[in-house]
Amino acid sequence: MSAILQSYLRGQWAAPAKDLAEIPSAIDGAVIAKTGSSGSDFAEAVRYARETGGKNLRALTFHQRADILKKLAAYLSEKKEPLYALAAHTGATKRDNMVDIEGGIGTLFAYASRGRRDLPAEKFIVEGPNEQLSKGGKFAGTHILTPRAGIAVHINAFNFPVWGPLEKFAPAFLAGIPVITKPATASAYVSEALMRLIVESKLLPDGALQMICGPTGDLLDHLNGQDSLCFTGSIETSDKLRNHPAVSKNAVRFVAERDSLNAAILGTDAAPGTPEFDLFIKEVVREMTVKAGQKCTAIRRVFVPRAQEAAVIDALKAQLSAIKIGDPRVEDTRMGALVSMTQKRSVQEKVREIASEAEIVFGDPAASGTDDAALKGGAFISPVLLRCAKPMDAKRVHVTEAFGPVATVMAYDTLEQAVELVAKGEGSLVASVFTYDPSVASALVFGIAPYHGRLLVIDRDSGKESTGHGSPLPYLVHGGPGRAGGGEELGGMRSVHHYLQRTAIQASPDRIVSLTKDWSKGAATVPSQEHPFRKDFDTLVIGDTIETAARKVSLEDIEHFANFTGDTFYAHMDEAAAKANPFFPGRVAHGYLILSFAAGLFVEPAPGPVLANYGLDNLRFLKPVSPGDDIRVRLTVKQKQDARKPEYGEVRWDVEVFNQDSETVARYELLTMNARRAA
Amino acid sequence: MSAILQSYLRGQWAAPAKDLAEIPSAIDGAVIAKTGSSGSDFAEAVRYARETGGKNLRALTFHQRADILKKLAAYLSEKKEPLYALAAHTGATKRDNMVDIEGGIGTLFAYASRGRRDLPAEKFIVEGPNEQLSKGGKFAGTHILTPRAGIAVHINAFNFPVWGPLEKFAPAFLAGIPVITKPATASAYVSEALMRLIVESKLLPDGALQMICGPTGDLLDHLNGQDSLCFTGSIETSDKLRNHPAVSKNAVRFVAERDSLNAAILGTDAAPGTPEFDLFIKEVVREMTVKAGQKCTAIRRVFVPRAQEAAVIDALKAQLSAIKIGDPRVEDTRMGALVSMTQKRSVQEKVREIASEAEIVFGDPAASGTDDAALKGGAFISPVLLRCAKPMDAKRVHVTEAFGPVATVMAYDTLEQAVELVAKGEGSLVASVFTYDPSVASALVFGIAPYHGRLLVIDRDSGKESTGHGSPLPYLVHGGPGRAGGGEELGGMRSVHHYLQRTAIQASPDRIVSLTKDWSKGAATVPSQEHPFRKDFDTLVIGDTIETAARKVSLEDIEHFANFTGDTFYAHMDEAAAKANPFFPGRVAHGYLILSFAAGLFVEPAPGPVLANYGLDNLRFLKPVSPGDDIRVRLTVKQKQDARKPEYGEVRWDVEVFNQDSETVARYELLTMNARRAA
Repeated sequence: MSAILQSYLRGQWAAPAKDLAEIPSAIDGAVIAKTGSSGSDFAEAVRYARETGGKNLRALTFHQRADILKKLAAYLSEKKEPLYALAAHTGATKRDNMVDIEGGIGTLFAYASRGRRDLPAEKFIVEGPNEQLSKGGKFAGTHILTPRAGIAVHINAFNFPVWGPLEKFAPAFLAGIPVITKPATASAYVSEALMRLIVESKLLPDGALQMICGPTGDLLDHLNGQDSLCFTGSIETSDKLRNHPAVSKNAVRFVAERDSLNAAILGTDAAPGTPEFDLFIKEVVREMTVKAGQKCTAIRRVFVPRAQEAAVIDALKAQLSAIKIGDPRVEDTRMGALVSMTQKRSVQEKVREIASEAEIVFGDPAASGTDDAALKGGAFISPVLLRCAKPMDAKRVHVTEAFGPVATVMAYDTLEQAVELVAKGEGSLVASVFTYDPSVASALVFGIAPYHGRLLVIDRDSGKESTGHGSPLPYLVHGGPGRAGGGEELGGMRSVHHYLQRTAIQASPDRIVSLTKDWSKGAATVPSQEHPFRKDFDTLVIGDTIETAARKVSLEDIEHFANFTGDTFYAHMDEAAAKANPFFPGRVAHGYLILSFAAGLFVEPAPGPVLANYGLDNLRFLKPVSPGDDIRVRLTVKQKQDARKPEYGEVRWDVEVFNQDSETVARYELLTMNARRAA
Repeated sequence: MSAILQSYLRGQWAAPAKDLAEIPSAIDGAVIAKTGSSGSDFAEAVRYARETGGKNLRALTFHQRADILKKLAAYLSEKKEPLYALAAHTGATKRDNMVDIEGGIGTLFAYASRGRRDLPAEKFIVEGPNEQLSKGGKFAGTHILTPRAGIAVHINAFNFPVWGPLEKFAPAFLAGIPVITKPATASAYVSEALMRLIVESKLLPDGALQMICGPTGDLLDHLNGQDSLCFTGSIETSDKLRNHPAVSKNAVRFVAERDSLNAAILGTDAAPGTPEFDLFIKEVVREMTVKAGQKCTAIRRVFVPRAQEAAVIDALKAQLSAIKIGDPRVEDTRMGALVSMTQKRSVQEKVREIASEAEIVFGDPAASGTDDAALKGGAFISPVLLRCAKPMDAKRVHVTEAFGPVATVMAYDTLEQAVELVAKGEGSLVASVFTYDPSVASALVFGIAPYHGRLLVIDRDSGKESTGHGSPLPYLVHGGPGRAGGGEELGGMRSVHHYLQRTAIQASPDRIVSLTKDWSKGAATVPSQEHPFRKDFDTLVIGDTIETAARKVSLEDIEHFANFTGDTFYAHMDEAAAKANPFFPGRVAHGYLILSFAAGLFVEPAPGPVLANYGLDNLRFLKPVSPGDDIRVRLTVKQKQDARKPEYGEVRWDVEVFNQDSETVARYELLTMNARRAA
């Protein structure tokens, strides 16, 4: 680590020329790093991201980018140990840092794996379905998603110097968007160390990631309508960024995770003695003390049935008083320090605001909670529990976020009132509900869902395995409406889609196929001389088609199939009963018989490139097949997709089964694994 | 029509008390209506929408709201004639008004039909897939979409007084969001007449729709984080709305359709004499003259290969000079008036700006284009075609939107340059590409897609049936990045989703089932005494399960099935060849045989509530079945859904086929149509 933090811009480390700010250790107040960004040219950094980074990234497929993410995650996993030592100076315990460091690396792994599984081996995504736009069938529509020709600026909070930058980076990188990331000053030395590992790994394409340590100067002036700006932090800063003239005028995509007065709600059924009561107490204490409460997802408001209010407060007090506060590097420390003395003063001020409507029932915001003289210069603070007696009349307690180990207990009388109270937070990232009663769960979940990006229902079944109220997960939405900022970060591939531009494409069905490489009904077929099952994956062309001969389906076939398979459903066996069925003209062939005969018509028996039929999608039986009907099949290559192993490819076939009047009796998509061309 | 326009607020028509503004007819300048909103209490209107409207709407399912939309569309279709006469005063011809009036009503029909088809008969949407979140399988996640507990404010442009309010209303209403709509002053008398029809229809629940004719006063001050604000109009007004303190601080969802310098691009292959050249000329002229060019989607920039520049200009001049300008009520008038003299002055000023970088090659912005003395007070203007000689160096021509019959021709040298030129518009709603060459189409489409919400490729195949460059369609995205505002209106159910809050739900699999009514693997099954196929739709419970007996699959079965169906694929017939296949241990059963035997195991032969198996989804064969293996089936009710006809319901079954070692050999979802309980 450099005592003076550097920015990584245009492929080079750059030290600030002057105007350095000091960053004190949260543990003892000693200066641990200095930071500044004077002398950096942000116009050039933006241009470098846009031109070098953007070009390099858009030259890769989603799968190639996923593979790089995976390698980066593995590299960081190898090299992560020094980050722990460094991060202790932010006041965080080892467990706190695991959430940050392992959580950040885990998010990279998660996006790598889902990128491989859920995104195509292409540079764009086709988002169906195809829409027919004219009666004649010669004008159709679909949608494609392509990487915006822009950059993403990520402005992070101090509390997660590793997870913060990485969870924002992963979906942007996977989408093909170069990133300029900016850590918060108070913990920038950890983020800078992370960036050094990333640079050393040499895994990212040039321009894919730059980091500004220090003020961002005129950075935002250079953003345009292809760019994104993602922010985690306070409403005040968020407003400033959102209303920046370039951001507003150019409709820069703005995403914010802001203040959030997250709630935990004890269900009316969860009396003392129930597992849900105990899980509730444990979760509230955990959320108050992990990272010393410095999490945007921490529980700030604790809603309990009036009958349990006293019991809840007693139980929380008992557990809070057992929390050992002190040097985060010491093994048995349960809670470390706030990140800085500035932060401590802010928490104290916010507690004063909340206390105008509530009484402190545990802790003392003036106390550090530790007697260790060596920690005298540190930003330690005791947990503070408040109780608000009249939460329906209160205002500040619902909107004042003390970003520390602080929570307020409030009683409710009815479930409707609990919903109303939660809603007074005006939108949060997350809430958790503790109940084993399905109707209580339903009333609370659907009552408060519109105000939240994430909800947990914790009970005796899920309690042991729960990942906890405070943990955003890579596959689930992280973000919340209103006060929480209205953003949506994470959420699996949803967050990748947010970085892509969705574009409707209108054209003839043939042109849509040539653009999207996705065949749909109405487009031309390519009658194949050779049976397409005899062509290897690489030789197959989208639209390759075979039309089979016809085969009669006799009553004997139907009866034979019924007796052979055991499927003697009356619609196949009993003319009178079948006729009485509103959907059938009389006895009809089994759907599975149609499928089986269809396969008999199109399958090529001898060994060839088609190795296996591994599935079938979107099968619909559209018209009954009666005894005596003839069926025939049209099989067309719809899509080709790389498989996990390089020697195979996956082929999706459009299959249509017709009767003697050329009416469609069944449609489906058939999935086969095909060998690639021999090298 | 009232000479003084009224607002419809809190279920009542309210006339303005004072401060009336006059609205002149576009045809002759005579005052056609007066408008104002003084005396209206917007805080109360918002409260009424939020409380009465929101409650009424959220009490309905998506299907019920779709049904209301359909009835409303039918009602308006019956009563629409007077709107045409009135709308002529906005300067619009009959054809212009068809786009507006039929387009608006058609959008209601479209959303009604898709709402029925693509949304559940529920008050929320489950957005899968389920995510397993713990190794033990007792903690899982999914997402639900619920209506936000807020309102939508829709601020419309003058050019589509019917389509504008209706296309914004349809998705909001379907989502369950009450709307306060505000027409632009210049054509407010048409929107007010539309609103009178809607009110007379008595079809909407109280509070679902209110209209403000006149200034919006302090309306926005009352918005909160559950609300949406959707705007169509200029960047300047958009910025003012977006940066309103309540909108910014509360993270009100803001959607804008703003200025857009839409392009039409003639491909390098489309020389004079090709159908694409002719289609191009026709489309540019049409887009310049329909609605007198007052469409946010109109073609403003005309990019052509340098070799064709002169030919294009000649052809456009020839067709433009044949356009008959005049009284829009007269049958053979091809182009009517701009909406107002204010608008005419604005267009003239913008033409002057563009002309600083381009020469006028057709038309005269000072000319009215008509000699009719009766129209002397009208806002008529001649079409104006410009040519910019150095488009790569120009700036204003790419960013100045003259909202009238004005376009600029520019030549490009290479396809890369064409992409660069289009991108200089900084984001548009739509562009169209005229080419019959697939590689030209691909280069242009993927080059400019990031800058657009919609793209057309028009050629000899699609030309005749094309719905045109300028027509947003209900199922395709309408909106564009950057200068165009970054919004996304329309786009089928996508635009309904934008009004819903997405919430991740974490809970035990059982709790997820009880909340979402969607069974997933890992949740408890309800062993059914009676075969679930004997239970009618209403009696079936989510999770109802039957486990069948086992059945051996013999080599004889496989051979018999192969010979019967004709599917003699080697993997079933030839031990040595099957062994050589990387996926099979030797000869294996056909997938279709497994499906057929599975049906034989679970089907109940006698007539009962299950009427038909109409399809199958997400089938995957997970493990080969070898001769001698035993298979058995578990069938579980996954979802129930209302069918089109009230006497039936659709049941989705989770089907899992196991072998003798309880390994899963196949999984799929089975779809059946079931009878409902006899009344």
